[in-house]
Amino acid sequence: MHKGLKPFFAPRGVAVVGASQHPQKLGYGLARNLLLSDYQGAIRYVNPKGGVLFGQPIHARIEDAPGPVDLAVLLVPAEVVAGALEECGQAGVRAAIIASGGFSEVGAAGRALEQECLAVARKWGMRVVGPNCIGILDTHLPLDTTFLPPPGPPAGSVAFISHSGAICAAVIDWARGQGFGLSRLVSLGNQIDVNETDVLAAVAEDRHTRVVTMYLEGVSDGRRFVQAAGRVAQEKPVLALKVGRYASGQQAVASHTGALAGQEKAFNAAFRRAGVIRADTSEEMFDWARALAWSPLPRGRRVAVLTNAGGPGATAADALEAHRLTLARLGPETRAGLRALLPPAASVQNPVDMLASASPEHYAHSLALLLDDAGVDAVMVILPPPPMYTAAGVANAMIPIIQTAAKPVVVALMGERMIQEAMERLRAAHIPEYRFPERAASALAVLADRAESIGRSRAKPRVYPDVNRRRVAAILRKAGPGASGFLSERDAAAILAAYGLPTLPTYCAANPAAAAAAAEKAGFPVALKIDSPDIPHKSDVGGVVLNLTNAAAVAREVAAMLARVQVARPEALLNGVQVQRMAADGQEVILGAVQDDQFGALLMFGSGGVEVEGLEDVAFALAPATEEEIRYLLDSTWAGRKLAGFRSLPPADRAAAEEALGRLGQLAGDFPVLQEIEINPLRVLPAGQGALAVDARIRLIHPYSEINHK
Amino acid sequence: MHKGLKPFFAPRGVAVVGASQHPQKLGYGLARNLLLSDYQGAIRYVNPKGGVLFGQPIHARIEDAPGPVDLAVLLVPAEVVAGALEECGQAGVRAAIIASGGFSEVGAAGRALEQECLAVARKWGMRVVGPNCIGILDTHLPLDTTFLPPPGPPAGSVAFISHSGAICAAVIDWARGQGFGLSRLVSLGNQIDVNETDVLAAVAEDRHTRVVTMYLEGVSDGRRFVQAAGRVAQEKPVLALKVGRYASGQQAVASHTGALAGQEKAFNAAFRRAGVIRADTSEEMFDWARALAWSPLPRGRRVAVLTNAGGPGATAADALEAHRLTLARLGPETRAGLRALLPPAASVQNPVDMLASASPEHYAHSLALLLDDAGVDAVMVILPPPPMYTAAGVANAMIPIIQTAAKPVVVALMGERMIQEAMERLRAAHIPEYRFPERAASALAVLADRAESIGRSRAKPRVYPDVNRRRVAAILRKAGPGASGFLSERDAAAILAAYGLPTLPTYCAANPAAAAAAAEKAGFPVALKIDSPDIPHKSDVGGVVLNLTNAAAVAREVAAMLARVQVARPEALLNGVQVQRMAADGQEVILGAVQDDQFGALLMFGSGGVEVEGLEDVAFALAPATEEEIRYLLDSTWAGRKLAGFRSLPPADRAAAEEALGRLGQLAGDFPVLQEIEINPLRVLPAGQGALAVDARIRLIHPYSEINHK
Repeated sequence: MHKGLKPFFAPRGVAVVGASQHPQKLGYGLARNLLLSDYQGAIRYVNPKGGVLFGQPIHARIEDAPGPVDLAVLLVPAEVVAGALEECGQAGVRAAIIASGGFSEVGAAGRALEQECLAVARKWGMRVVGPNCIGILDTHLPLDTTFLPPPGPPAGSVAFISHSGAICAAVIDWARGQGFGLSRLVSLGNQIDVNETDVLAAVAEDRHTRVVTMYLEGVSDGRRFVQAAGRVAQEKPVLALKVGRYASGQQAVASHTGALAGQEKAFNAAFRRAGVIRADTSEEMFDWARALAWSPLPRGRRVAVLTNAGGPGATAADALEAHRLTLARLGPETRAGLRALLPPAASVQNPVDMLASASPEHYAHSLALLLDDAGVDAVMVILPPPPMYTAAGVANAMIPIIQTAAKPVVVALMGERMIQEAMERLRAAHIPEYRFPERAASALAVLADRAESIGRSRAKPRVYPDVNRRRVAAILRKAGPGASGFLSERDAAAILAAYGLPTLPTYCAANPAAAAAAAEKAGFPVALKIDSPDIPHKSDVGGVVLNLTNAAAVAREVAAMLARVQVARPEALLNGVQVQRMAADGQEVILGAVQDDQFGALLMFGSGGVEVEGLEDVAFALAPATEEEIRYLLDSTWAGRKLAGFRSLPPADRAAAEEALGRLGQLAGDFPVLQEIEINPLRVLPAGQGALAVDARIRLIHPYSEINHK
Repeated sequence: MHKGLKPFFAPRGVAVVGASQHPQKLGYGLARNLLLSDYQGAIRYVNPKGGVLFGQPIHARIEDAPGPVDLAVLLVPAEVVAGALEECGQAGVRAAIIASGGFSEVGAAGRALEQECLAVARKWGMRVVGPNCIGILDTHLPLDTTFLPPPGPPAGSVAFISHSGAICAAVIDWARGQGFGLSRLVSLGNQIDVNETDVLAAVAEDRHTRVVTMYLEGVSDGRRFVQAAGRVAQEKPVLALKVGRYASGQQAVASHTGALAGQEKAFNAAFRRAGVIRADTSEEMFDWARALAWSPLPRGRRVAVLTNAGGPGATAADALEAHRLTLARLGPETRAGLRALLPPAASVQNPVDMLASASPEHYAHSLALLLDDAGVDAVMVILPPPPMYTAAGVANAMIPIIQTAAKPVVVALMGERMIQEAMERLRAAHIPEYRFPERAASALAVLADRAESIGRSRAKPRVYPDVNRRRVAAILRKAGPGASGFLSERDAAAILAAYGLPTLPTYCAANPAAAAAAAEKAGFPVALKIDSPDIPHKSDVGGVVLNLTNAAAVAREVAAMLARVQVARPEALLNGVQVQRMAADGQEVILGAVQDDQFGALLMFGSGGVEVEGLEDVAFALAPATEEEIRYLLDSTWAGRKLAGFRSLPPADRAAAEEALGRLGQLAGDFPVLQEIEINPLRVLPAGQGALAVDARIRLIHPYSEINHK
């Protein structure tokens, strides 16, 4: 933990600045919670009005309060917070939680107040959480600096870090209601100083915390978050709910890659890199957190289902398959054991259907047999209210078996009131239970995913040492951005070539005669493309002609093209045409890179052509990408999968496509000034023959600055 | 209702055959439930052992029981059920529920017993529900023929029809726990007689039923189900959870259409046609059922969100957009009203954030303002445990406003124990509440979808009268299936032409010289395709050459192609080649039809070429398709959307594509013997110029029978 954060989590004394004697006031609630939390350090109350609270004096000024006070919790009007902070600094306080609202969330005046507070904090070397937050809660220390209505959460092993204060109250209540406990809870508020990344490492260090959950509205520094979260996720699972998913307001983009990227793709790529598990809903996040906190991880994805009825077994089988889990094949010994135990009409195939008459002993013994089967990695037990026994009786019989098992067991307790007692018993025994088989399956899937992600090594991106950074810098110095922000095609090709991305030699010609001569030099057949910095999508204006086999045809087509494009785009600057030898046949894909505001360079791969945005067969990763990420880009797109060959399509040079992605990612990472790079298409030639960037465009960041050249 | 089913739902008397005096036995539970249900007709107990139960005699034989007894519930060993049924028939019983298990679910012997029972029932004109079922429950009549542990469900307006008995117990318990009541519940068991379709209409007729929910493992007669469900859904929402989604075991297929179709696509198409709302999980089904049973339908998809905190508001906004709902733009009067009511820092934009200090009155008045806004179709209220008030206080203030509103209001009550009382009050007031904003949003979306589907007219498929059925029948009589099951290309083209599907004239030629002559006749440029009944995918073996511009080239390419294909497929019968004039440029799409076992002909549309299965840009509808369904096929695929034109791609003749789908659907519907029909590609020419089936294949059903020709 950064030692500046220690006073938040292990303060020797805490002062409540703004403590109140009136039970209606939040300043009373805060003092009450601190006292009730059983915090073992010194508790001091501060309020200019003075008085007595819970038998202790309320000091008029913090300097009057006997020390040591490491942490101050401020709940005074926004306008006086900076002054109060100053007094805290003078009194030797090392950390402050500003719980008060009325700051940047209400506009410019509040923003100015925040700056004032920050200046004071910097001056005294104090770290600040908030303002506009609920504070910090640690059930094990214990410490509770919130003003939420009691009771607080039970102690447990799930930590929660939140950008929203309101969610904290609900999460504490869910934790209590659903029987999982919290270890630490941090409400971050407006984050003038301490942010989600700072706190993540500090919270994860806590030995009581087994799982970290986060409610995020964004991140302050994307790359730092990825590094910090990646380190934490190596040790403990990190779950995140990221909201603001559909927030509009993307900046203008000029490429397919730019149009298809955006905040969501970037967050997914970042979470993927860091190993953070993204939940789509709050419900999912806590369903999964319970399982991760309580269950051993499975060794694989083979699940046995134990049920007393066929219907829920079928539902479970569907749900397992939807989550890429498989129904385990039971071994002959397991089947024989079940056969001996269960009535003749029972099914001893997976799902094992013991029939409605199943007793607590049937459940317990069958479960033990399934757990003993080497072909079973995890078990889902389905328990609707049994007609002849109580659900609680079944739960009691299973609990000792589940608690001593080295494999995860989740229980789908179907019902509500009739399974209440069974539910309480399972929760008390820290066994994850869910009302519906579908949710139980999703929890098992997260356990399996987690087990797999631990197995994956956190490889660094491969670095190609043969790239020529200096050459790229020189081109950029010479070229500048131009009015449109696009580099010329020649410069774009040269930059790619400097990073070892193979391109076709391109000859520029201003008129038909020059083009015919260039074609002779390039070798027939040739392709013609209009040469204009103002026309990003050439084929839209008839600016591409393919497969010309002689000089006369070239001259004729160039004349026609120049005339055609001039009509279509009278305002565009036309340099002439580009002449390229037609590349050999291959599979065409798109490669792209954009600079994301939060996470830096982002790499895209997928089906190219003009229909990229319609088909949306693309995937994203952070750039530069690791080899695992590059494999993911290829395996999760049809464009990538079909490189292996499909029907009459021969296998293409997958390795060349992978290398091109690696090099492009390195280029985008090295030069953040390259706002958008798009190779469309990259032609991937038959296996062993490489790949060629047939067409490429590069747009520079706007406003452009030389400073961006590292 | 089919009058044969009336005795199940309005019997004058009920006999329990197999009633038992022993509280451990299901035959006791059944008698007990019937008595406790407060059923008003005669209740008779039958058991050869005789005795007294609940103060009434147990008759040795049903004929000894005083009449009238319309309905018998049998719970005796499987082997004696047929005999007991016979006695029921003799005694004038008109309907029987066989609750006993031990029938087809345990194998062939059980299947034989079922046939015996069915024969007896037919003889006496008795209708039968079961065997292996839980029976029937009607909370309003009232009547309870189940043996489930009490208490039964509260009376309400949600009906439940189930293929699984075990689910019924859980559903009754959910209904009680979640505060929604049931109207009727029917457990269907092995369905030797009465099936889900029979019961659907009967259950929906009940005036107490506002929503019908179904747990389906399949349907007995797909087309009949679609018709019956379609009629019911016109009046009342029908929700279905269909399991067995991932069940494998598809039959062999020979086309892209066949490979991409399958049970799931067929069920989705059928539910779409019928207007049945498909739930993915049991949880969703009952979340949605509560909203549909209790809420008015919205007039549009514009939702206002009322919250006391920004975080949950952001979550809600995300969830609304994920469900294709929009955040309403609040009118100036609404904003002014909110501004006057709320503290200055509150946000009066949507989501309306009243801040954490919001009182019950703030909630109630703001809600009233939002409901009065003509630009708001529905409201989601978000209520985490408020720091200064109780959630129940807020609920109480809002309830009268919600109950008198003509617009739906759903409440996201975030928490567990601290919102318990608010939850109970809202449930008692029949206001749908959910723990999480995401689930509340999904319920609102279903209300909006339902409102839209009521607005949609249930158009019949358009019928093209100019088709030539007789010509198709004649071709089929002459052609027969051939060893491969495929028709020749010439016959396939002739069949399409008979249904008004435009094809290119195709000339068959056995050798290079004949092909050159045919090409002169067709007009250059021409395309060549190998002519073999044994080669479904021609381009895979080099069996396609395009764009030949003179006779010499044709002769040369034909010789090369025949040699090439002979090497690639030595076993294939080669008739020679087909010669076609090259069609004008256009957009290429795939059209297909397959016969589904359950639902008959299924129509497919999407992106064609050889990569159909990789891209999976396809959609399905029942055939023949309505105009709405044809629009859906086009609008839900990229292939369909881009017919409107995209970048340099000119707009294509969408109307021609629609007509081709209509005609193909009619053909597949008229001739179930055509197992698979695939037009790949259909070339859709520029607007106004029509469309051309460039390549088509038809496979006949196997085993083939002339009887299939209608």
